[in-house]
Amino acid sequence: MTPLRPLLAEAIGTALLLAVVIGSGVMAERLAGGNVALALLANTLATVGGLYVLIEIFGPVSGAHFNPAVSMVMAWRGELRAAALPGYVAAQLLGAMLGAWLAHAMFDMSLLQFSTKVRGGTGQWIAEGVATFGLLLAILRAPAGRASAMVAAYIGAAYWFTASTSFANPAAVFGRLFSDSFAGIAPASAPAFVVAELLGAALAVGVDRALKEQART
Amino acid sequence: MTPLRPLLAEAIGTALLLAVVIGSGVMAERLAGGNVALALLANTLATVGGLYVLIEIFGPVSGAHFNPAVSMVMAWRGELRAAALPGYVAAQLLGAMLGAWLAHAMFDMSLLQFSTKVRGGTGQWIAEGVATFGLLLAILRAPAGRASAMVAAYIGAAYWFTASTSFANPAAVFGRLFSDSFAGIAPASAPAFVVAELLGAALAVGVDRALKEQART
Amino acid sequence: MTPLRPLLAEAIGTALLLAVVIGSGVMAERLAGGNVALALLANTLATVGGLYVLIEIFGPVSGAHFNPAVSMVMAWRGELRAAALPGYVAAQLLGAMLGAWLAHAMFDMSLLQFSTKVRGGTGQWIAEGVATFGLLLAILRAPAGRASAMVAAYIGAAYWFTASTSFANPAAVFGRLFSDSFAGIAPASAPAFVVAELLGAALAVGVDRALKEQART
Amino acid sequence: MTPLRPLLAEAIGTALLLAVVIGSGVMAERLAGGNVALALLANTLATVGGLYVLIEIFGPVSGAHFNPAVSMVMAWRGELRAAALPGYVAAQLLGAMLGAWLAHAMFDMSLLQFSTKVRGGTGQWIAEGVATFGLLLAILRAPAGRASAMVAAYIGAAYWFTASTSFANPAAVFGRLFSDSFAGIAPASAPAFVVAELLGAALAVGVDRALKEQART
Repeated sequence: MTPLRPLLAEAIGTALLLAVVIGSGVMAERLAGGNVALALLANTLATVGGLYVLIEIFGPVSGAHFNPAVSMVMAWRGELRAAALPGYVAAQLLGAMLGAWLAHAMFDMSLLQFSTKVRGGTGQWIAEGVATFGLLLAILRAPAGRASAMVAAYIGAAYWFTASTSFANPAAVFGRLFSDSFAGIAPASAPAFVVAELLGAALAVGVDRALKEQART
Repeated sequence: MTPLRPLLAEAIGTALLLAVVIGSGVMAERLAGGNVALALLANTLATVGGLYVLIEIFGPVSGAHFNPAVSMVMAWRGELRAAALPGYVAAQLLGAMLGAWLAHAMFDMSLLQFSTKVRGGTGQWIAEGVATFGLLLAILRAPAGRASAMVAAYIGAAYWFTASTSFANPAAVFGRLFSDSFAGIAPASAPAFVVAELLGAALAVGVDRALKEQART
Repeated sequence: MTPLRPLLAEAIGTALLLAVVIGSGVMAERLAGGNVALALLANTLATVGGLYVLIEIFGPVSGAHFNPAVSMVMAWRGELRAAALPGYVAAQLLGAMLGAWLAHAMFDMSLLQFSTKVRGGTGQWIAEGVATFGLLLAILRAPAGRASAMVAAYIGAAYWFTASTSFANPAAVFGRLFSDSFAGIAPASAPAFVVAELLGAALAVGVDRALKEQART
Repeated sequence: MTPLRPLLAEAIGTALLLAVVIGSGVMAERLAGGNVALALLANTLATVGGLYVLIEIFGPVSGAHFNPAVSMVMAWRGELRAAALPGYVAAQLLGAMLGAWLAHAMFDMSLLQFSTKVRGGTGQWIAEGVATFGLLLAILRAPAGRASAMVAAYIGAAYWFTASTSFANPAAVFGRLFSDSFAGIAPASAPAFVVAELLGAALAVGVDRALKEQART
């Protein structure tokens, strides 16, 4: 049986991550007065800072995946016991939903809501694949002690260079589905995003193997 | 008796921190021409840079708390002598007030003033609790040498993802109370913020214990 | 014969770099509503984050040049075998073109296109020389483990302080030539940019030698 | 006699620093369409990135002062030979002027010009004192390997929290005097800025001594 502490870490970490992503999106949209570029810029910087800190805080306890695609890759590579995978994913999904609710509570919004923002199309699906491909490559090849900065910097870039603003995380898709706000995604748009993310993650595993030399020290 | 040097460090450090927070808020508001998102963005980046540097400068002397909630947690955990706590808090509060006045002096504003910006409501109180919870978790679990970057990055994120723009610090509340500017808080709004912050800090101590594995090296 | 893995790393890395540069430029221009400063700011931050991560990911495999000017300097100094140079440059140019196409695919733009943005004049040519001079100086004198942060920070600064927004990379010129978007450059403007970049790189080699003390550890 | 290499480093480094400060100010002002907050934000980020890189590049050769106030403090503390001080200051002033001209050359402006931007008043003079005080404190107490990041982050904060936008450097004052642009300062305003900076630097030396414990390792 998986010990409870890693699951607690994944749940709290993913909750805070989603609170950061959704909360800063709400704040940014409220303050930006319709200037979407400025809102996304603030949303980006908050996410970068939050990711860096959350990975540092929870990394030693659970690996700080906060992301089923990451946990699946780690299980595939034997760095996470296969038996621990379902618990990890459940904790991440639960945390993501709670994080959305926490953001809503802070901004005096109704807790339970569903996004109506339709996202999709070939370009965005390619974008989600690319976004997750790059994220996994960063994680798999990060030198010791640099994964936190690399993941944060990568997601910051990916918010802008991918047409989907880079969800790159099935748990993030799940959590954002519960928020009819700047960072939300309509439930009907979610499955295709998740499929694209898993394909991108699989591609990263292949490319990492092709590059072979390990950067880890 | 507490030696004077740590108290000097806490006073000067907290003064400079509040000068950064309030001063950059004034500058940002003056230049942003009513664009609040842009003003908060500048205020955020200045605070992130300032926090990082101040923690590096004063950390070796006093721990660079600049925050009564942090000092109380450290005293509770035995990392600060209980007898030193009142001096630390007094130095922080004094420094915070002087820092507000320093900001006013630089921007040719009348030194003594009180904020009229009412802040509060359930959402903002939850936000202050969350903000301080995350801050303490970052401090308690920072790997060696990373507390400065983590605290700075966290507060940068929290300026945006918490509905209160993350005071997360009773001394910051106290100092900002003396400034009728962008970063101010009306005196009547202050007590509830402080209560929320202390509850958030206490929760962080509990969660840190539940996670148990120490990240400190 | 050069092993394939470094070439694969250079091709994928340069492709992702160009996807970041062009993709974030497209996103920024679409969202910024004509505010060019805001668009360039977003473009800058995405490039900084992307560069940092890509250099960390691919550095151990190929040196993470992504730039013919860098590879030529490394070959000149004997840090890259001369026989490997043509393969490196070819991989970079191919990757750059593919990266532009990847950006177009993500943003639902026609894949094959050519920029119509004329760039040039004495000021911009000086700027490209200065931009590449500083980039090479940063690379040649980076302390161990800091090249990624230094290159990223430098290019972020150079997007703003050089009149050309700092291409500083013949492969970037080549890739951007294929994109009629914010980050593009008209084919007719490309040769002079490349010449200026190579002159700037040569100057950096000379100044590095004059400064003599090696910062590398 | 001072060897030539440190002087070359100070001259080139200060020239590039001023080119960054002035060049990014020109670019930002041109693109921002009257939005001063946005222009200063871009100017800030470029300066932060540039400072970090320049200190890393030239630090091992000359200490990367780029600033007569820093060199004077280092001479006072015996970390720079007194006989080397005049050469350092001359190299910095010469470099600053050449850097302004380099910026003008890149942006197709007339090389020789003088600022008409009057800066001054009690608030701004206090601000320059505070700005330089904090800068010197950061330099004097930086842990090994962190001075570059600390100085860059500090100046980024100080651009916003000090009413003068933090020149904090007599060589920067001198160089900006030659530029009738966003970052300029009228010659008549320069002497008072320099006096305030030197007083701030002297105060930092005193406070550093009062705090006593050395952070350097």
